[in-house]
Amino acid sequence: MYRPEIKVVDCTVRDGGLMNDSKFPLETVQAIYRAVCASGVDIIELGYRNSKKHFDPEKFGAWRFCDEDMLRKATDGIESAAKLAVMMDAHKAEAEDILPREESVVDIIRVATYVKDIDKAIYIANNAIEKGYDAAINIMAVSHAIERELDEALQQIEEETKTFAVYIVDSFGALYSEDIDYLVNKYQRFLKTKEVGIHCHNHQQLAYANTIEAIIKNVNYLDGTLYGLGRAAGNCPLELLVGFLKNPKFDIKPILDVIGKYIIPMQKDIFWGYSIPYMISGVLNVHPLEGMEMMSLAEHDPRKFDYAGFYERLSSEVEI
Amino acid sequence: MYRPEIKVVDCTVRDGGLMNDSKFPLETVQAIYRAVCASGVDIIELGYRNSKKHFDPEKFGAWRFCDEDMLRKATDGIESAAKLAVMMDAHKAEAEDILPREESVVDIIRVATYVKDIDKAIYIANNAIEKGYDAAINIMAVSHAIERELDEALQQIEEETKTFAVYIVDSFGALYSEDIDYLVNKYQRFLKTKEVGIHCHNHQQLAYANTIEAIIKNVNYLDGTLYGLGRAAGNCPLELLVGFLKNPKFDIKPILDVIGKYIIPMQKDIFWGYSIPYMISGVLNVHPLEGMEMMSLAEHDPRKFDYAGFYERLSSEVEI
Repeated sequence: MYRPEIKVVDCTVRDGGLMNDSKFPLETVQAIYRAVCASGVDIIELGYRNSKKHFDPEKFGAWRFCDEDMLRKATDGIESAAKLAVMMDAHKAEAEDILPREESVVDIIRVATYVKDIDKAIYIANNAIEKGYDAAINIMAVSHAIERELDEALQQIEEETKTFAVYIVDSFGALYSEDIDYLVNKYQRFLKTKEVGIHCHNHQQLAYANTIEAIIKNVNYLDGTLYGLGRAAGNCPLELLVGFLKNPKFDIKPILDVIGKYIIPMQKDIFWGYSIPYMISGVLNVHPLEGMEMMSLAEHDPRKFDYAGFYERLSSEVEI
Repeated sequence: MYRPEIKVVDCTVRDGGLMNDSKFPLETVQAIYRAVCASGVDIIELGYRNSKKHFDPEKFGAWRFCDEDMLRKATDGIESAAKLAVMMDAHKAEAEDILPREESVVDIIRVATYVKDIDKAIYIANNAIEKGYDAAINIMAVSHAIERELDEALQQIEEETKTFAVYIVDSFGALYSEDIDYLVNKYQRFLKTKEVGIHCHNHQQLAYANTIEAIIKNVNYLDGTLYGLGRAAGNCPLELLVGFLKNPKFDIKPILDVIGKYIIPMQKDIFWGYSIPYMISGVLNVHPLEGMEMMSLAEHDPRKFDYAGFYERLSSEVEI
């Protein structure tokens, strides 16, 4: 028994790119694209379409910009029913950086924004829609949003855009299931003409559980990444999501296969997933930046495993 | 706002002992005991009191047997309000292996059992209660129990024992939140005079979320382990549980400290935690044994990362 309205989104290359400056080899992106498409997942996001004014192309890899020629190289010759998405950061992207839809391989523009940048996000989303794309808005760091401002942002999106979905983004992995319920109710109340989406981080090992909670509350757009590859503790693991959903169109095997062949080997160079510094960030509802710094300390640095000290330091910062 | 009835149980040494044949150095057990007691956790389980007829003392470490002298060495001189528990496997322990309570440092006997061995479990629990201990029964592998037999077992425990709690044990990490709800309701229906407990495994990254779900449904005995150390994908991480509970008696810092100093270094020798072979076991609701074999293959063995093949093999076994 499944809900056909549910759309699963793979954003491995996009969110994972926050851990390696979006420097994935082309072959890896092709393999991920091939596997995700073969699994029946509905949408695949291959990176950011951010501005070269904001990110130095010498320092960041191709998937921070997703130029059309790179996207063609990643997808050419691979049969797919999945829609192709890129993400634009409201405060780090330029509306002009997208072509008219008929000249692009992209189907969907997802605009990531903080509540404070909602006007920029709406401008970019509407520009994309005028050019022929479907567009969604992802409201980041929702656990830090001031409630009245969030309400206004949702109302504005509802009135001023034709986006198909608006996402709850738990950037800090700080939300519990009751928070998910509360936010989904709020989103649904404001967004009469749109779907609600969910994008979770795994700082407290709740990314998958909170995604299920959202499903139960009729959220239909679900983000996941292969083996949870994403910023800090990572995201809702796509393999768990596909293992849970009952729609027979999904096939978990290509997902498992590409994880074994391409994602696991990345663990030598990138560390993502549950760990104590990220858990502490989640419990305290703060950005995982300091946790990421701690994780990057050398193995022999005594500060690296001084978790009690880290907790104390972060707690006192929160309390100031 | 907290529920004073909630009792947190640390079973790091006991469940973690399934990953290293219970061979923890004494110093490690002392450090764990000291930290868990300092954190305000209510009960600490330091291993199994299983029979030397079933486990060769040459092959298994001291914490598979928990002789009184070892327990004294682990706990002597450490101030503690926590109760000390050991676990007895109904089918691998002898009732005679426990002393009268006044000669022992143990407070609580937890009896682990499959539904089929419920008579043995009741015998061992009642023997312990007669000798002056508190006793609980943990029904393992509940996701494989035949429902009518589970009902009978619960009824029998209710009528024939004075155990203070009966546990739902999700040995295979196969349960979703709706299953937890269903089982908690069932346990509460049969067990009018007892508390319900929850012990989860993390094969699908749901151990903590399912424990929260159980809390919401008025389950009061909650098992966790430091950094999730336990069989296969491990357990509900104690640090998450203590980070979530609002009772001011809990102090998370000693827990974080001992994780950094003693638990993380064990990762060099023992692998526990979320991984694809365990995830597949959880999704398919099977014992993690084959997953553990797969995890123990050498890095260069091509079968080690053939996750799709493993899924296919396990699925076909399940379907036979």
